[in-house]
Amino acid sequence: MRLALWQTQGFPADIDANLAALDTQLRAAAAGGAQLLLCPELWLGGYQVPEAMAELAEAMDGPAAQRIAALCRTHGVAVCYGYAERNPSGGKPYNSAQVIDTNGQRVTNYRKLHLFGTMERELFSPGEQLEAPVELNGWRIALLICFDVEFPEIVRSHALAGADLVLIPTALTPEYRAVPELIVPTRALENQLFVAYCNHSGVENGLAFLGGSCVASPDGLRLGAVANGDALLLVDLDRSRRAEWRETFPYMQWRRPELYGALTNG
Amino acid sequence: MRLALWQTQGFPADIDANLAALDTQLRAAAAGGAQLLLCPELWLGGYQVPEAMAELAEAMDGPAAQRIAALCRTHGVAVCYGYAERNPSGGKPYNSAQVIDTNGQRVTNYRKLHLFGTMERELFSPGEQLEAPVELNGWRIALLICFDVEFPEIVRSHALAGADLVLIPTALTPEYRAVPELIVPTRALENQLFVAYCNHSGVENGLAFLGGSCVASPDGLRLGAVANGDALLLVDLDRSRRAEWRETFPYMQWRRPELYGALTNG
Repeated sequence: MRLALWQTQGFPADIDANLAALDTQLRAAAAGGAQLLLCPELWLGGYQVPEAMAELAEAMDGPAAQRIAALCRTHGVAVCYGYAERNPSGGKPYNSAQVIDTNGQRVTNYRKLHLFGTMERELFSPGEQLEAPVELNGWRIALLICFDVEFPEIVRSHALAGADLVLIPTALTPEYRAVPELIVPTRALENQLFVAYCNHSGVENGLAFLGGSCVASPDGLRLGAVANGDALLLVDLDRSRRAEWRETFPYMQWRRPELYGALTNG
Repeated sequence: MRLALWQTQGFPADIDANLAALDTQLRAAAAGGAQLLLCPELWLGGYQVPEAMAELAEAMDGPAAQRIAALCRTHGVAVCYGYAERNPSGGKPYNSAQVIDTNGQRVTNYRKLHLFGTMERELFSPGEQLEAPVELNGWRIALLICFDVEFPEIVRSHALAGADLVLIPTALTPEYRAVPELIVPTRALENQLFVAYCNHSGVENGLAFLGGSCVASPDGLRLGAVANGDALLLVDLDRSRRAEWRETFPYMQWRRPELYGALTNG
């Protein structure tokens, strides 16, 4: 699979502008042979827009989702994007991400489980459950968002459910450079799957982001990474060496779950 | 605490020679102000000595342990070392590590839980339980051995039990460079504790080791690391910034163990 990561500063609280930019980038991604394009966390309406967040939230099949579905069909590229999801129960919105395929169909929707920091906890409801991996183009893909990946438990859970690619929209600030440099490749290695981590770039309403989007493979290498600034990173994910990697790093085979009970104690 | 990592090629199947070298290194470590010296996995009798392993095994309070206890008292330095432990039940020995303090008392003994590869599985019995962290010089220390650290579950378990330093004798070959470079600092960061990882150097009976011993801190930095070759690495572990780190990386606070049930399913 050729995967596109779209690292972008975006247009805060301007969904129309972001959708226009997506149209442009999907055209480029399609021309570059990509089958799937990954956007940052809360890309649709922006991350650093606390006052507008509730108003920007929309249902998972809301008007922006429908416009994105049309773009997916037009360009023949699937999209994974972060957005504020209106809460069907009327509570605070979710910090969500969803994947829409080239038929314009939603493949999966995920609500962030590990909210980060005071602002996110004030603005969002935490997700209630891990979503099982789903199939896209013959790959078993799973979604996480930003802070989630820093918890080894949750990536491991996806690996145990058979995921071979974890897509992670993120909104990471510069003091957390260790996340894309250490944690993301470690998650790929220790779980024997691919991890794609797509961040914002630049500055949004005074909040500076790291950039640093990357894709890591099951041998712990970062297949591709960018610095800061807007970028479209196209990376080929090749599973042909998976059997060899799983022999070299047989982590899933040699776990001893009977010893891990402390992990689930509240 | 000033911690010494002794990366060494060692003398395979020659316990006397290894104890004489330990005497020398403990003198150096003491002169350098170290309180604790960490040796590699199966340092006492060697790693690549499959035919001799059962014969080299001794009880945790066997003659070598007693001689090491005397060295600890003499030099005023505690020691953590790997050795083949005779199985009290008469089965295959354990791949163990123990800590002896400056009073010559055993503080803890640990039997490797995740055995690696065919040779280890043929030679050793796997450990049956995780040993709880123990106190040494005001630090809560825990032991793991080599392959163990590559499993996030088991380091997390020690963190949940309050460990603030994990000591890891290892015997790592060159193709696993990602372990000291990625996994060890990730474990330190994601669990907010210090990790010390001490490997063999050089070549033992035809088996080449990586070297690459290192110490990582809760901010994900490698405080010290060496290449290959014999080395004595003295590193100061400073907990004074721990509160600040735990605020920046509040992983232990924001876990959601109710969602991690998949990790303990056999």
